[in-house]
Amino acid sequence: MTKHTKGNGPATKKALVEPVNSRRSFLKQGLLAGGAMVAGASALRAEGGDPAITETQEWAQYLGEGVDARPYGTPSEFEKHVVRRNVEWLTASTESSVNFTPLHELDGIITPNGLCFERHHGGIANVDPAKYRLMINGLVDKPMVFTIDDLKRFPRENRVYFLECAANSGMEWRGAQLNGCQFTHGMIHNVMYTGVPLKLILEEAGLKTNAKWLMPEGADSSGMNRSIPLAKGLDDCLVAFAMNGEALRPEQGYPVRLVVPGWEGNMWVKWLRRIEVGDEPWHAREETSKYTDLLENGIARRFTWEMDAKSVITNPSPQAPLKHSKGQTVLTGVAWSGRGTIKRVDVTIDGGKNWQAARLDGPSLSKSMHRFYFDFDWNGKPLLLQSRAIDSTGYVQPTKDQLRHARGVNSIYHNNGIQTWHVRENGTVENVEVS
Amino acid sequence: MTKHTKGNGPATKKALVEPVNSRRSFLKQGLLAGGAMVAGASALRAEGGDPAITETQEWAQYLGEGVDARPYGTPSEFEKHVVRRNVEWLTASTESSVNFTPLHELDGIITPNGLCFERHHGGIANVDPAKYRLMINGLVDKPMVFTIDDLKRFPRENRVYFLECAANSGMEWRGAQLNGCQFTHGMIHNVMYTGVPLKLILEEAGLKTNAKWLMPEGADSSGMNRSIPLAKGLDDCLVAFAMNGEALRPEQGYPVRLVVPGWEGNMWVKWLRRIEVGDEPWHAREETSKYTDLLENGIARRFTWEMDAKSVITNPSPQAPLKHSKGQTVLTGVAWSGRGTIKRVDVTIDGGKNWQAARLDGPSLSKSMHRFYFDFDWNGKPLLLQSRAIDSTGYVQPTKDQLRHARGVNSIYHNNGIQTWHVRENGTVENVEVS
Repeated sequence: MTKHTKGNGPATKKALVEPVNSRRSFLKQGLLAGGAMVAGASALRAEGGDPAITETQEWAQYLGEGVDARPYGTPSEFEKHVVRRNVEWLTASTESSVNFTPLHELDGIITPNGLCFERHHGGIANVDPAKYRLMINGLVDKPMVFTIDDLKRFPRENRVYFLECAANSGMEWRGAQLNGCQFTHGMIHNVMYTGVPLKLILEEAGLKTNAKWLMPEGADSSGMNRSIPLAKGLDDCLVAFAMNGEALRPEQGYPVRLVVPGWEGNMWVKWLRRIEVGDEPWHAREETSKYTDLLENGIARRFTWEMDAKSVITNPSPQAPLKHSKGQTVLTGVAWSGRGTIKRVDVTIDGGKNWQAARLDGPSLSKSMHRFYFDFDWNGKPLLLQSRAIDSTGYVQPTKDQLRHARGVNSIYHNNGIQTWHVRENGTVENVEVS
Repeated sequence: MTKHTKGNGPATKKALVEPVNSRRSFLKQGLLAGGAMVAGASALRAEGGDPAITETQEWAQYLGEGVDARPYGTPSEFEKHVVRRNVEWLTASTESSVNFTPLHELDGIITPNGLCFERHHGGIANVDPAKYRLMINGLVDKPMVFTIDDLKRFPRENRVYFLECAANSGMEWRGAQLNGCQFTHGMIHNVMYTGVPLKLILEEAGLKTNAKWLMPEGADSSGMNRSIPLAKGLDDCLVAFAMNGEALRPEQGYPVRLVVPGWEGNMWVKWLRRIEVGDEPWHAREETSKYTDLLENGIARRFTWEMDAKSVITNPSPQAPLKHSKGQTVLTGVAWSGRGTIKRVDVTIDGGKNWQAARLDGPSLSKSMHRFYFDFDWNGKPLLLQSRAIDSTGYVQPTKDQLRHARGVNSIYHNNGIQTWHVRENGTVENVEVS
């Protein structure tokens, strides 16, 4: 809560008392603009003496908090609903569970650190950076141990990458139709990482000629580990210590995590304590009983690391209904691909009868989220909204039915099918499927 | 604090017990690498049985916090020192004052929202978005009033821009030599904004033919206002409602602020409640008695809106000393220009005798911070560090003496002179000047 000091400082008594346009002129304006621009519910309210503009607003009457009030800032008290959310029935414990990024409350392509979804296997390790160590061992010339300060003496890079859990949208395989993009698509975040190319660290230890695989291991109580081909490690992996400018958050692996661009989130080992170099994969729990894709014929796909191109409309969506009755409307969403940039996003508002290219806006970065918009004039009738991503390799995001036809419905991983939202006349939105 | 549950879940007892290299092999490795790579204080410690790697770390022994613990995340408890800081003697009250971004603790180019410096003239307005209104009046065809929801129906853009207070480094004019880049250069942040081009909002109201100037006005108790040429408003200004993906923070103008790319921060009016359109500037307090540059001859420069190209080395710096005695060292900093991108940053470690081009890393965006690095082999002797930015117009960042020669020392604004840090043999760093 803000403390309200009676203002004896530079406060002014100036009110927003300028005359506003009459209903007649407003409607005329609406006609002049051809219905393509904003409607003005506020102007209508103002005609009757909208206190929000005819009286001095309370926050203009008193001094607000000073510059010593919030050494580390937090969101407005009016944004308390913008949080990560977990689903109680989904897992047996919250320590081995997941929560979801509120995509419908975000814009642009950066996910704020406090809202990056979490997936833990033994809870959040609370690592003391002074006691943190990273060991490199196995098929290397010299096993090595690094402190944080050691790592910060290697050359660094800054890259924006999405991290998507392979199980994102997993419940959509069988049509669970969860009620909001936070839950259907919220196991993703997009962050600027600062870190050391893993290649430099491996070269420091010296790779044996038979080195072929890496096994990063976490320092949490689950000792999370995965097998990663050496070629990927030498390509674009980072040993990262910062996200969006500041130190990693505990939920994202503080003080050090592995960044594996474009590949499934489970491989981005958090609280990274060790990387073993070997000549074959380790067949760890998280790449055998989990993170494999059971097909209809009983065979499981494995090592399905790359995240296929995908997109979702974040607004409107079930948690973010339309608040106006018709007219100029902004549709927005995000698209990403584990194989490069997003070349195009197509959008339909009639369930696939007509598709139009969305407007991509903001930086286009490889293996990063891209923001798209589609500005349209809503006629006030029901809508069936879909988006379809096309990446720089030419890959086109498939429908859910195409995916089911190819892979059946046994898996919970790698569902990148097209999502449909049904917008009702009253602006509310539900998760539906169309054939 | 993290709750430590006795682990009866998936916790493992695996310790980091792999053998590490002996002192002999470490030193040999150091020689092999030609002294160009990391030294290994940790390896030396490990030889004597470093408990950090020979014993199971405490965070690996218990389940950590679950996914319901932090709906909106915060930094690790070990990062409590990473905060904005104000200077008590600088101003009479904290409501009309400033605090500083901890640049020396950051990396990459995104400033986390919680660490963006603050400058208020009447404290932080605590605005209820439901009661928020933006009025456009003056030389327009139709005065208009918009709610937040109205604004979100206009087409949006996402852009990364730096915001620098014109008084940043102001105390360096007379050589105050504040002890850290947080205080000498911390009145800057760099954020991805989402907002509506101001041009679209002005066009909606309709500009009269004699319209030439804009006066944005804040809803805080100071009613902050500035005159801005209409041409700038029609060029790249945004009416922004999100920063780094989420809603603006109260300290940065929640729910709506003006973004004036490349121009001094004071013009980026926060808690934006009104924009008046006029035919001449208003000569407001903040463009007459303040934010003008008093020269030696008694004449004051005014309307010095554009921020000149500038850079600063953030590490090492007085608050971030070197922790090793010699060898491979990372020097890093940030550079920016109100006129475009940064083409090059030169760095010297000997007080200007020799200059070398730094490595620019991360996206290069117009009117945004750029991150630079200079990886060098420190001989353990004292250093005099400087950086010099060159922007896309060819402008070269001047020395402080060049600035003083041109403008005297009466002003507190627009000091973009080259900063010097003196690194002692023991790694500590002080703010100095060299001629």
